[in-house]
Order: sequence, then structure tokens, then C-alpha cells
Amino acid sequence: MSGSRRARAEIIVVGTELLQGYRADRHVPFLTVELRRAGLDVRRATVVPDQRQCVAASVALALDSDATVVIVCGGVGPTPDDVTKDAVADALGTTLKMDDNAREEIRRRASVFGDVSPDAVDRQAMVVPGARLLTNHVGVAPGLAVSRGSATVYLLPGPPAELRDMFLRYVGPEIRRTASPGWVAMIRTASLREVTVAEMVSDALGLGQRVTAAYLPAPGIVDVLLSANSKRTLASAVAKVRKRLGCRIYSENGGELEEVVGALLTARGNSLVTAESCTGGLVAQLLTSIPGSSRYVLGGVVAYSNGLKERLLGVPGDMLRRHGAVSAEVASAMAEGARERLGGDWAISVTGIAGPDGGTEDKPVGLVLHGLAGPGGVDVARHVLGGDRAAVRMASARLALDFLRGRLMVS
Amino acid sequence: MSGSRRARAEIIVVGTELLQGYRADRHVPFLTVELRRAGLDVRRATVVPDQRQCVAASVALALDSDATVVIVCGGVGPTPDDVTKDAVADALGTTLKMDDNAREEIRRRASVFGDVSPDAVDRQAMVVPGARLLTNHVGVAPGLAVSRGSATVYLLPGPPAELRDMFLRYVGPEIRRTASPGWVAMIRTASLREVTVAEMVSDALGLGQRVTAAYLPAPGIVDVLLSANSKRTLASAVAKVRKRLGCRIYSENGGELEEVVGALLTARGNSLVTAESCTGGLVAQLLTSIPGSSRYVLGGVVAYSNGLKERLLGVPGDMLRRHGAVSAEVASAMAEGARERLGGDWAISVTGIAGPDGGTEDKPVGLVLHGLAGPGGVDVARHVLGGDRAAVRMASARLALDFLRGRLMVS
Repeated sequence: MSGSRRARAEIIVVGTELLQGYRADRHVPFLTVELRRAGLDVRRATVVPDQRQCVAASVALALDSDATVVIVCGGVGPTPDDVTKDAVADALGTTLKMDDNAREEIRRRASVFGDVSPDAVDRQAMVVPGARLLTNHVGVAPGLAVSRGSATVYLLPGPPAELRDMFLRYVGPEIRRTASPGWVAMIRTASLREVTVAEMVSDALGLGQRVTAAYLPAPGIVDVLLSANSKRTLASAVAKVRKRLGCRIYSENGGELEEVVGALLTARGNSLVTAESCTGGLVAQLLTSIPGSSRYVLGGVVAYSNGLKERLLGVPGDMLRRHGAVSAEVASAMAEGARERLGGDWAISVTGIAGPDGGTEDKPVGLVLHGLAGPGGVDVARHVLGGDRAAVRMASARLALDFLRGRLMVS
Repeated sequence: MSGSRRARAEIIVVGTELLQGYRADRHVPFLTVELRRAGLDVRRATVVPDQRQCVAASVALALDSDATVVIVCGGVGPTPDDVTKDAVADALGTTLKMDDNAREEIRRRASVFGDVSPDAVDRQAMVVPGARLLTNHVGVAPGLAVSRGSATVYLLPGPPAELRDMFLRYVGPEIRRTASPGWVAMIRTASLREVTVAEMVSDALGLGQRVTAAYLPAPGIVDVLLSANSKRTLASAVAKVRKRLGCRIYSENGGELEEVVGALLTARGNSLVTAESCTGGLVAQLLTSIPGSSRYVLGGVVAYSNGLKERLLGVPGDMLRRHGAVSAEVASAMAEGARERLGGDWAISVTGIAGPDGGTEDKPVGLVLHGLAGPGGVDVARHVLGGDRAAVRMASARLALDFLRGRLMVS
């Protein structure tokens, strides 16, 4: 291992249900970012069933593959299919033993939930010899940290809220103390294409920088993940990128667009209403996914049919006939109608062709018009978006939020 | 390997972006179900970066672990970080060679997209010696199937639409011909708790059945995956479960609740409007996620504030003051108001407390009321749902759809 090579982590997710389909893992995306933040590259993530042999084999393989940190997720609870501790003991050539401190702690945690079945307490109090106990502040089952040579195996509970709390509280800080820190910044942008963001960032960073940039596109947004070897290098890179992208950046702390818009509205004491056609309620749904959004979201209208565009928003029938429902005129009238009839400080509207059918040469699938009515009048924006129906709808909704964000920034 | 043990598959997903966080894999859930359907148990799923050595090591490991089918997803395209073919060649101890048939096919496919860069065509025409070509009917890059001993390695393109098409078209049928078939049925239910579904299914199947049932809960729904060793055993089990669960089953072909509701409305020529409070547009959004939903969804109202409940839906102010917005009275008035003012055959309403705050002893977080107005009058349903804000909202939306489905089934 060369000195410049970053320390390496492996993630092992234990869960038969993830190999039965229809349920996607949620641990790997969270852990990879946090491990990068702590200075580790994730070199492999494996999903294995709740079978002692399978788990043991994966842990052994990770330890043989020069991983310095191995995170094993799930299977530390009290039920018979919780085999992770046994499996890790197998991989380390040892056997579990009862730990009195663990038993006390588990009993204390279990009593919070009013369930202190002695069998369950005892099962969870069996630990790998030499392991350090990680208190579970959300649920009951404690985590474990076991060192062997230069590697540490962390056993964390499977419920996402428990795993996250335990990682952020114990594992992340501990790794940061021992690993050479990794300096990672995530810069989130909206309304730009991936290639545009990449050009702007490369341009800002210049040549020969000791910073790597990864681009993570999703409908309507592009995240830029900057990684550097020192705090100073990262800070300088972030400053350059910030200067170049300017107000295209909506978040540097992982916040979602709907949270940022909510915070801007709250700060101004402004309220918002929505008028949606092709997004069918997605804009309102994103906005109201944030707790406390009732402070600034009054509500909205899903005017999917032309009849409802007339009846609920007052869009003139002859305008719909002359320009079509997907037009700048109608987007504008929808926003104005919503602001007037529903009574918010701001109204955003979306009308477009989400596909897969309904496109024409003049108005292709992916064409979307946004209207934004506010104290200073109405603006309209026009985009042609790629991707399937779901992607067009999500990008349309996010662009609507970003349109409003842009206006709130300058007003 | 004993005769009764099912053949074993491994999935290797190639993608550095999946180990940088923020993006979750989408291949494993799809492939595990399809492989089960084809008679294979997935015993390990691994995510590795776009690095030739890492991919090669994982393929070698899978072949050493008695897998009969290895699916490698992604990295077969024309760019320099597409290393899967090289890596598989490494694992098999061979090197890529140019294939003239592949070149012709790639040129033909590339011309559909108007992009026949000779370099890209040539790169994609390099194949593992002895591999069979799998035509890409969606994109350009072909897949490959390479056999070694009793194992076959399938190299499939990474874009989900291409991977799915290629799997369903070639890989699934091919595996089914060689593996002893697995008989799997998925039965989807809504509005029941997991424990209730499990009791009903166990009860229906009785003891000593050669059928296994797995329960896959998601907010508002529980999927039952039945697996058997013969077609007859499966058919008998499905018949029993069908009889016991009856109209609680909304789909046996993987269809979503919003598709089933859409089909029922279409068959009756009926239209629908929505009136949402705590779901904030999610019901309308789910319904309109289905292409062609404009045939039966007219639109809806997101009446998040009490003011809009009055103004847009005509809910009396004194009813809101007397019973509160989260009450059977208001749910009923919202549905009636929406049906009258928006003009659909059916109107569904949702009002509730999504949390995390806003609950009281009488009206806890998770309390949700649904109203359903139709040709025969108004019904109201009441539920107390568990989980966080996102789970309560999604379960509320699905229960609203299932409420309507129940009425459409009998009307």
C-alpha cells in the first residue's frame, strides 16, 4: 500500500429481504458519503442473506482484502435470524460470550420501550470477546466495534435511524481520529445540465488541481462532490467553484431544494400556492414533505384537465384553444389565477408534456413551461427536458422550485 | 450440492457512482425477483467501482463460490471507464478480440441514434472469446453471455431500461430453460398490516406446505411472495391465498395500486378528482404518474390551509372550528365539496396528522381520515398509521386509492 493511497472501507449489508427483491438497500448511499467524509474510500459493498456462513465469509473476505474499516449493517437484534455477531466471531476465529455491562445497558434501553424479555436481553448481551460496546440511543440493540490488526469491524443495527445515529455519534468521529481525514464538499446545483456544470467546475478549478470532482446528476439537479487531501486545498476549490457557479448553488449542506425554498419563504414571512398540470401534484407534494411547511404552503390546484384550468384558475377558454394548454400564455395565466384565487404571496405553475405520448414537432415530449407570479408581476420560463415520464415530471417540479428560489434570492 | 438445493446466482453491479453516495442501486431489486422467478436464489449482490481489478476479482470470486449464473451490470459501453468486458476476460484468463458480427450490429444500432463514431463502434465490438452476443433493443451496447463449466456470466448494460429489456428478452428465458424452474407468485395487498397478512396466509396455506411465503411490507401495502418447487404446488397455494385474502388483493402481476385504480375507472368511463390536506398532492401525483391518466383524472385541490378548505372546497368554517380539520366531518365535506365543485364522478379526500409534530392524545400523529364521494353518497374511513412523516403520507395516499378501489369493485 503506497502512502498516498487512501484507506479503504467495505460495507456488508445483512438482509435476506434485500435479496428477495422489491426493497432497495438504503445503507450504502448514506455510509459511502459519510466514510468519504471521514477519509475512507469504499471499495466494495456487499449484500448478503441472514445466513451465518454467508456473513462470516464476507467479513473474512473484507479483512483479507486490506480493508481498514468494515461496516456490517443489520442482524444484531434479539431474533433467531440475527446472526451477525456469531458470524463476525466465526470470521475472527472466536466465540461470543456474555457481557455483564452490555446486559445492564440493554436492560436499561429495553425498559424505555417497556419490553425487557430476559431472553431477548440475554441474546443481545452476547458480544465478540474484546469488542467495544456502542450504545444505541434510538433503539435497543447495541453496536460493537472489534479490532484485529490494523482493521476495525463495526457491527451496527439495521433500522436506518439507529444505524445513522450510531454512525454519526461514534463511528464517524472514531474513524476521523485514526484515518487521515478526507475533505469532501457537496455542492448542489439546479436547472443546469451535467455537462454544463462539469465545464464550469473544471474551468473554475483549472489544471493540475489536487482536487477531484464527481458529478451526480438527478432529474433537475446536479450534485458536485469535491474531494481533496487537505482542508486548505478543499476550501480553496470550494471558493473557486462557489464564485463560478454563484447563485446556481442551492445547498452546500445536503439540504433539498424544497427545504431551501421553505427557509427562504419563512425568512420573508411569505406564503406560496401552486398550480400544476403535468406534474400532477408533485410540486405541492415535495414542498409539503418538509415538516412545518404549513407555515408557508397554503395549498394548490392540480388542474390536469382544461376544464379545471378554466374553472379553478380562471384561465380563459379561448386562450387554451388558441395557444394550447402547454404554452407560455397558459403557464402565466395559471400562476396569476392561482395567486389571485388562492391568495398567496407567490404562485408557481407548471404545464408541459410529460410523455411518453402527446408530443408534436412544435411541442415535443419534455417541453415544460413554468409560471411564477409574485408581488412584482409574472415571469415565465421554458425548458425542454430529457428522460422518461417520471424524470420529466421530477425535473419539472424541481425547476419550478428553483425558479421561485431564484426570485426569492433577489427580491 | 444436494439435489434439493436451488441453483445460486450472484449479482455484480459496476458503478463508481454507487460508491460515492447519494445514488442507490436499482438493479438488485429487479434482478433478484426475476432470478427467483427463473428458479435461482441470489446469494450475494456486490457493488464495485469501475476498476478493472475490482470487477475481475468479484467475477472470479463468484465463479469460485459455486454460482451458476453471474450477472454483471454496467460498464459495457464505449467510454474508457467501461471496463467490464476486460475484467471478465481477466477473470476467465483470456483477452478480448474484435468480433465482426458485433461490429455490424453495433453500427446498425448506433445509426438509429445518429451516432456512429468509428472508435465507439470498435470499442463496443471487442468481445470475450466464445461469448454469445445479446442484442440491445433499447440502446446501443450489446450484452454478452459467456459460459465456463456449469456457470454462465451475463454482461448487461447499465441503463435500467436497457438492462431490463435485455434480461426479460434473453437472460430470463435462457435461465428458465436450463435451471429447474422456480415457481414464484407475487400477491399484492393494501390496507392490511403485515402481521395480519401473514396470519391470513399461514392460515390459508396450513401446515407442512411445500411453499414458502415472504412478506414485503411498504407504507400501506404488503406484498406476499410465494415460492414453490412445482407449478402445481404454487397454483394450489395461490388459489388458497386468493380465496382467503379475496378482494384485499389488488394485483398479481406486479401492477401498482394507481394503475389498478386507473384501469377500473377507465373500464367504467368514470372520472376522479382529489382533495388533499396532509398528503399535500401525493394522491394526485401517484394517479398522474400513470401515462394516459388524463383520461380519468380531472385534477384536484391541495387544501393545506383551513382557508383553502373553505374557499376551494366549501368546507364550512364552523365545522372546521368545531371538529378540527382532522375529523370525519371535514373529510366527508372535502370529498363532497371536491365532487361538486370540480365535477368528477368520484372524489377522494385525505386529512390527517403526518407528524412529526401536531399530535394530541385524542388525535395522535398518524391519524388519517379519508372521504370518498361517489354516485351513491359519501363514505368515511379512519386509520391510525405508524412510521415517520414520509411513511404516514405514503400510506395515507395508498389507503385513499385502496378505499376507492374497494368501492369501484362493488359498484
